[in-house]
Amino acid sequence: MKTFFDCIPCIVRQTLDSVRLVSSDEVLHERLLREVLRSAAEMDLDRTPPEMIQSIHRRIRDLTDHNDPYKQIKDSLNRAALDLYPTLRTWVDESNNFLETAARLAISGNVIDFGVNSQLSETDIRQSCMHALSTSLDGNVDEFWDAVCNAQKILYLADNAGEIVFDRLLIEQMPLEKITVVVRGFPVINDATIADAEDTGITELVEVIENGSDAPGTILADCSESFVKRFNEADLIIAKGQGNYETLRKTDKDIYFLLKIKCPVIARDIGCQIDSLVMRRSAMPAVSSVEE
Amino acid sequence: MKTFFDCIPCIVRQTLDSVRLVSSDEVLHERLLREVLRSAAEMDLDRTPPEMIQSIHRRIRDLTDHNDPYKQIKDSLNRAALDLYPTLRTWVDESNNFLETAARLAISGNVIDFGVNSQLSETDIRQSCMHALSTSLDGNVDEFWDAVCNAQKILYLADNAGEIVFDRLLIEQMPLEKITVVVRGFPVINDATIADAEDTGITELVEVIENGSDAPGTILADCSESFVKRFNEADLIIAKGQGNYETLRKTDKDIYFLLKIKCPVIARDIGCQIDSLVMRRSAMPAVSSVEE
Repeated sequence: MKTFFDCIPCIVRQTLDSVRLVSSDEVLHERLLREVLRSAAEMDLDRTPPEMIQSIHRRIRDLTDHNDPYKQIKDSLNRAALDLYPTLRTWVDESNNFLETAARLAISGNVIDFGVNSQLSETDIRQSCMHALSTSLDGNVDEFWDAVCNAQKILYLADNAGEIVFDRLLIEQMPLEKITVVVRGFPVINDATIADAEDTGITELVEVIENGSDAPGTILADCSESFVKRFNEADLIIAKGQGNYETLRKTDKDIYFLLKIKCPVIARDIGCQIDSLVMRRSAMPAVSSVEE
Repeated sequence: MKTFFDCIPCIVRQTLDSVRLVSSDEVLHERLLREVLRSAAEMDLDRTPPEMIQSIHRRIRDLTDHNDPYKQIKDSLNRAALDLYPTLRTWVDESNNFLETAARLAISGNVIDFGVNSQLSETDIRQSCMHALSTSLDGNVDEFWDAVCNAQKILYLADNAGEIVFDRLLIEQMPLEKITVVVRGFPVINDATIADAEDTGITELVEVIENGSDAPGTILADCSESFVKRFNEADLIIAKGQGNYETLRKTDKDIYFLLKIKCPVIARDIGCQIDSLVMRRSAMPAVSSVEE
């Protein structure tokens, strides 16, 4: 997805939120702010928002000399989600439709996005879970499970720390031998890395690989060759979150995007309301090649 | 008030809102957006936000070749406020404390600010009136009326079209011979100009003068000599709205700032909550010179 004009003020605001989380030095805040404004003024709007955000967070890491400035936040999100996990697991197990409940909760976990909301609290996370059970789901769960059953090699592209525990609820319902979970190759914002997959026990459940990139999304040109090979070999991709949607939306691949809508630009792009739970399949390659 | 870092993304967002209201040409939107980003990157943050917004709106008028792009919006806001006026006037007349009710309603009219909210509806305006009667007022109304009674020359710096009808409710309670209402010298956003004062009958009630400037606030260095003379001669200034607060906050003059708080930066600066109704006196010159 290209960068819309409305993404620019939002990216500038996110920049301030992010740098304040990792440093209280206002001279540094101003320096970064001016750099980001200069760079946004010249930006190629055909690039996706995660590409610009990737550059900004590289710069925050450089300026603050922190390789992983959100480490403590990620640890705390993982712990909060693990504390919730037994309750959520009971909700799934006792549900009339445990596949749908697991999907809803996995999508609701996508609220844990410090790029969009750096003030997120545990109360917000609990409220998102409650909301997930009562709101409508924009997607067809039966078709999703058919696609999972029919696929042989499934890549599950995780999004954020904490959220990955919610993903576990969904993954546990799937044929585990088919599933490979993918995390970011390097730290960026609170996106899940291999450390989060290990800390939350996902590595004990299924294969977990890194994508080789530090973008808050999946920019294939920026990912490792080994990941891209696995991506190409997979016959189904499950992509969590806005960053993966923005970067993979136009990819010629069978992808299920699972995300909670947190921004008006993506809401408009998908055609749904803010706070919607979305399970949307991309145009399938076979169909699109017939159409072309 | 200086420009805080958080003002920058808000100004960029306002730029998009504003230019979209007056043109649907996306090439022009992008051109302006890039210009504003470039200019914000180099901005002197000791300048007030209205100074930057003034430049942006000059550029919007240049690019769209409209001298007064908000003219229709202002006319419609004036009409909506005039339609409400008889009801509001009844509320004032039937109130136990008509001076306070008039002040509350005048401040609530400050919701009509297309710089902050370009999507404002008549329902929002009505809700703001209802809210004004039930919420707490951050200020001392008795002291305000004492100041009005004790002053001989009062300048009432108006803010926006539509809002000026709400100001009328307050002005009508004052000794009219002491009052001069001041409007902007040229159109900017939906700020009130002489045409709005005429259309809403304010010119029939009291003297109305222009300040000679097209800033959405009162930047004395940018105002006409004749206005500055009147400003210096006045012994009480009543300044409506955020723009007048931002530009006059540090002026060595007895000023009552009457405004509805619409932004977190000003809320923090004043020390109150968003949506508060504020009636705040500046440090009085005599007191501050003793303290210095």
